[in-house]
Amino acid sequence: MDVAIIGATGYGGVELIRLLQGHPQVRLAYLSSESFAGQRLCDVYPHLAGIGTKLQALDPAMVADQCQLALLALPAGRSLALAPVLLEAGLRVVDVSPDFRLRDPALYPAWYGFEHTRPDLLQEAAFGLPEWYGEAIAGARLVAAPGCYSTAALLALAPLVAERLVDPDDIIGDGISGLSGAGRTALRLPYHFPEADEDVSAYSVGGHRHLPEIIQGLAEVGKATARVTFIPHLVPMSRGILMTLYARPAEGVEVGALRTCLEAAYAGARFVQVLPEGVWPHTKWTTGTNHCFLGVGADRSTGRAVIVAAIDNLGKGMAGQMVQCLNLMLGLDETTALTTAAAYP
Amino acid sequence: MDVAIIGATGYGGVELIRLLQGHPQVRLAYLSSESFAGQRLCDVYPHLAGIGTKLQALDPAMVADQCQLALLALPAGRSLALAPVLLEAGLRVVDVSPDFRLRDPALYPAWYGFEHTRPDLLQEAAFGLPEWYGEAIAGARLVAAPGCYSTAALLALAPLVAERLVDPDDIIGDGISGLSGAGRTALRLPYHFPEADEDVSAYSVGGHRHLPEIIQGLAEVGKATARVTFIPHLVPMSRGILMTLYARPAEGVEVGALRTCLEAAYAGARFVQVLPEGVWPHTKWTTGTNHCFLGVGADRSTGRAVIVAAIDNLGKGMAGQMVQCLNLMLGLDETTALTTAAAYP
Amino acid sequence: MDVAIIGATGYGGVELIRLLQGHPQVRLAYLSSESFAGQRLCDVYPHLAGIGTKLQALDPAMVADQCQLALLALPAGRSLALAPVLLEAGLRVVDVSPDFRLRDPALYPAWYGFEHTRPDLLQEAAFGLPEWYGEAIAGARLVAAPGCYSTAALLALAPLVAERLVDPDDIIGDGISGLSGAGRTALRLPYHFPEADEDVSAYSVGGHRHLPEIIQGLAEVGKATARVTFIPHLVPMSRGILMTLYARPAEGVEVGALRTCLEAAYAGARFVQVLPEGVWPHTKWTTGTNHCFLGVGADRSTGRAVIVAAIDNLGKGMAGQMVQCLNLMLGLDETTALTTAAAYP
Amino acid sequence: MDVAIIGATGYGGVELIRLLQGHPQVRLAYLSSESFAGQRLCDVYPHLAGIGTKLQALDPAMVADQCQLALLALPAGRSLALAPVLLEAGLRVVDVSPDFRLRDPALYPAWYGFEHTRPDLLQEAAFGLPEWYGEAIAGARLVAAPGCYSTAALLALAPLVAERLVDPDDIIGDGISGLSGAGRTALRLPYHFPEADEDVSAYSVGGHRHLPEIIQGLAEVGKATARVTFIPHLVPMSRGILMTLYARPAEGVEVGALRTCLEAAYAGARFVQVLPEGVWPHTKWTTGTNHCFLGVGADRSTGRAVIVAAIDNLGKGMAGQMVQCLNLMLGLDETTALTTAAAYP
Repeated sequence: MDVAIIGATGYGGVELIRLLQGHPQVRLAYLSSESFAGQRLCDVYPHLAGIGTKLQALDPAMVADQCQLALLALPAGRSLALAPVLLEAGLRVVDVSPDFRLRDPALYPAWYGFEHTRPDLLQEAAFGLPEWYGEAIAGARLVAAPGCYSTAALLALAPLVAERLVDPDDIIGDGISGLSGAGRTALRLPYHFPEADEDVSAYSVGGHRHLPEIIQGLAEVGKATARVTFIPHLVPMSRGILMTLYARPAEGVEVGALRTCLEAAYAGARFVQVLPEGVWPHTKWTTGTNHCFLGVGADRSTGRAVIVAAIDNLGKGMAGQMVQCLNLMLGLDETTALTTAAAYP
Repeated sequence: MDVAIIGATGYGGVELIRLLQGHPQVRLAYLSSESFAGQRLCDVYPHLAGIGTKLQALDPAMVADQCQLALLALPAGRSLALAPVLLEAGLRVVDVSPDFRLRDPALYPAWYGFEHTRPDLLQEAAFGLPEWYGEAIAGARLVAAPGCYSTAALLALAPLVAERLVDPDDIIGDGISGLSGAGRTALRLPYHFPEADEDVSAYSVGGHRHLPEIIQGLAEVGKATARVTFIPHLVPMSRGILMTLYARPAEGVEVGALRTCLEAAYAGARFVQVLPEGVWPHTKWTTGTNHCFLGVGADRSTGRAVIVAAIDNLGKGMAGQMVQCLNLMLGLDETTALTTAAAYP
Repeated sequence: MDVAIIGATGYGGVELIRLLQGHPQVRLAYLSSESFAGQRLCDVYPHLAGIGTKLQALDPAMVADQCQLALLALPAGRSLALAPVLLEAGLRVVDVSPDFRLRDPALYPAWYGFEHTRPDLLQEAAFGLPEWYGEAIAGARLVAAPGCYSTAALLALAPLVAERLVDPDDIIGDGISGLSGAGRTALRLPYHFPEADEDVSAYSVGGHRHLPEIIQGLAEVGKATARVTFIPHLVPMSRGILMTLYARPAEGVEVGALRTCLEAAYAGARFVQVLPEGVWPHTKWTTGTNHCFLGVGADRSTGRAVIVAAIDNLGKGMAGQMVQCLNLMLGLDETTALTTAAAYP
Repeated sequence: MDVAIIGATGYGGVELIRLLQGHPQVRLAYLSSESFAGQRLCDVYPHLAGIGTKLQALDPAMVADQCQLALLALPAGRSLALAPVLLEAGLRVVDVSPDFRLRDPALYPAWYGFEHTRPDLLQEAAFGLPEWYGEAIAGARLVAAPGCYSTAALLALAPLVAERLVDPDDIIGDGISGLSGAGRTALRLPYHFPEADEDVSAYSVGGHRHLPEIIQGLAEVGKATARVTFIPHLVPMSRGILMTLYARPAEGVEVGALRTCLEAAYAGARFVQVLPEGVWPHTKWTTGTNHCFLGVGADRSTGRAVIVAAIDNLGKGMAGQMVQCLNLMLGLDETTALTTAAAYP
């Protein structure tokens, strides 16, 4: 299978390359990069010493000519025009931008500042969260991989909401993220080392863009209208997202039932581990992997349920999940090229 | 004024020394240290090159003999026996342990595992949060300085609860802390650099010990029974606490009213700054200082109020606050020895 | 091939497990741990969710019974007694401790504080630096893998000394290391997060234990008596070693000749990359891998040669190198299970 | 004394403000900023909540009109034109750029890429290292404060070279720096958090710009032509420089003599501490201060002397030293406004 990575030199792109290097069914046939077109990958990233592939300016016709599947790792708003071209040329597409994540086109102007011109593809796109949309992904032409925070929040909450074990109208998601989520191109002051080091802050307090995905996912999987407050924070590390989710258990529901529900939901899941009672996840456990660890408990003073999810924002939150989707699309074991454990510490 | 620091070589103690070195009314007459008794301070901490004072094993009689005021920076359970001895000898005491923070002696067995033998002192002790208990502190024999998380939470919430602008029964406090809060003596695995670095995790999910102080403070200041879920997290930095507080505004209350309330509450406060709309605090702004920065806003999708408080856990969360209390007790300007801004970055 | 890891829960051990999980010819048949005997690996390290293997107290007879090869990841002084037992039982052994690295038994009392009781094995042991001792390793019963600093220093210097391109009597090695080299068990103050964070310091200035290995390696490979000053430093990161080596070029030798020499020496080496002119290595490029990157240049004001080597202290500096040795011993491609690139960033 | 800070919003400028806020003889009368002219300082840096001073675009006439002394914290090449204007208007100037550090104008094209148009001022300027040029500074119109690496290197080496205790022709300086030295404006990839975090690298290997200052300083103070190899490294922290200096003791000179020499040289120095035998400095000891700690020893295998110097690059390496110079120029105790110890940890 000849695969293209569009946006190969961003952090998501280079993580895709790392993972797919070890994939037995994938050949990296086309690597596009705006910033480094014409250079060899190993000159841009000397640690990829073995990969002399030349980076190309994006030419959709060439992609279509040379590949059967394209992985798009572009900023918001760029896939909207590109994906249709590739689809029409017969390629299958996994897109990690938000451009095809939201079913409702009306959300785009409000959250992303552009009109959506392809509502048909919003309907068609499979939401790239394999634990919940595996079948749709397997057969999809277009997969819209969810955002990193959304992945963590939905894995933690979807089963509980679906089973009506928590009140979907009273959910708080407190996210803590490393800084690689900012990407590599945007050299902005908040990510300047001396500013970000030894600092914690909240951001996007008015409303983070991953919120509508979370609400949509809970609606689809949990069949519930959800009301969620979500505040993300930046902390001085590179990779990792910890989502602490606060929810009110439904009348009479004990924390044991929450755990049982999550364990059942992910009994067959290869990348989601529900931790034993009293064990809480660390982002370090996920670095470089496609794993999600879930801790479940309750605050003893209010009875509020607390679910904590840890993922690598570039792994299960991005490139790992894209590879997992690709595996399903190709009919492969979903763990192909995703088996290595986190390098610890 | 001759002052003793009991527990002078822990992180709280050494921060007290740093601050009080520049205090015009204070002479550090007695520095106790269990681990380093007999050594000179500058041999234990070479960066304090100028201070050749010998560290002493704790001898309450000598403390009483040589000092008029004692600052206790000991672990939980140690001040309970010591403070009464010093008080009886006529000293005034500022204690930063939890031993005299809670009015209700019944809380001690549950939260700290010991019976409280001096309920009279629990009643007498002033709660060392100067913005709310300034008068009591000024006249107190015994001041019980609050915990770091409690300081941040109470500064953010107390005015809003007191004015009934938020529902006191539906509060979530999500805390993010650096690792100096763990102290210097406890060399445990979670604080081992390779474990803590590049990691985020939640802890004390079942109930953190600062919770009863927060509830007590809201009850006293806010005259309300509060129900609070509080989950702390550790992140890879040394100093700083960010508390993100989620509360439901009372019927008809807009975010502007919350801001107005906080601004009014802290109009005369020298160490609490309410930030302008859209500005959110960074812990880096507080490093080494006694400042607290408050950001106020609302999640646009649910209307829930979000207040974010940043302090230095060793500053306003510990040593800075103790010095502020001491200043009040001595009838000095409360900013004495606390005027230096954070070293940025 | 049934393999034992002795010391499986230290940082070296757990990295061996991570690498060998993906090794097609190796079955992890025996995992010993002093601290966690009786527990399952996945309970000690929840991120290794898939590995339920029970950790065992060390029983050499059982190791001998169940395995054909043992990887020893023990602190200094412990392999000296164990390795001979395993060898006599017919196992092959890769030891990463210093116990069999030095040919001269007289060095042990001075550098390690114990008398060496098996000088015969010091003679027999292959020095586990595959780029220089590959043939010996392939046929060895006992391999003594070098220290992390030694690996970096020898890869950088050995070819230049062997070719007499630099003066072996005037070498300085300035090492900068992350903190995982301290191991996991030793919870000492210098590795306590608040102490190590935002700090740099030199240590072992009087003489670091890796120095005699470096000198021995230069003598064996370079056939030269070398005089080396080596000072290591600790910096706030987990993994990675950067060695900056200062050497005086021999009369008439230009920096181009140094580069040519290194390129020739490592032309066939799969894990050593000599970087182009003006490119200097980053430790980040090596994280989790068995790679070594070498930069070569000269200080323009003195003409002194500067060679900079970057490795992961737990990769090429420890577990990766042990796996590379194991591959050679089993007659496999030396890159088996070592092909994944660094997770970047 | 009305003082101007030119370049008030860079890291050096904001550190000057922090220090001078507590200075009894200084009024910050004029703060210039290119990036933030027209804004209030407290809006740019909310942690400086008390300082509502408006930032101004640079107008030398206004500076001259309002101030008696100017502190220039500008990038290389900018003071060359500004300082003469201010001097002619009768101000005294402390400049922290390299524009007036080097006596020999011929060095500027080679090292800084511009012709020097005021060789007269190069001769006139006092080199702003108070421990060695205190008298000149006290009487100077123009002080050129040295670079951060130079400060550390010269404090460590100057006495030894002056006393001929080490060979001035065989010196290596290995520098390790935090990232605040990069400044705040230059948002370049190497300082992007995900790149710099968990990484160490060497830079400016061909020749760092501080080298000619070091050589000039050794020539002036040590009266010796020196040959120095100097390689700096970046490590993941914000503040702090550690310089490890390798030098060959002169014939018959023992390490004890080196220590004695340094102790004697700095016996009266308020900011330089020579540490006892076996104690090596940590950059953490200097954070936010004007202190320099020196460790002295010898590598036991080669006899080479090793001197390690720790400073805060923004303290003794920049703003602290400028304030120390200002104090001398004003005839004040040189420790004025510089007495606070490092916030530890």
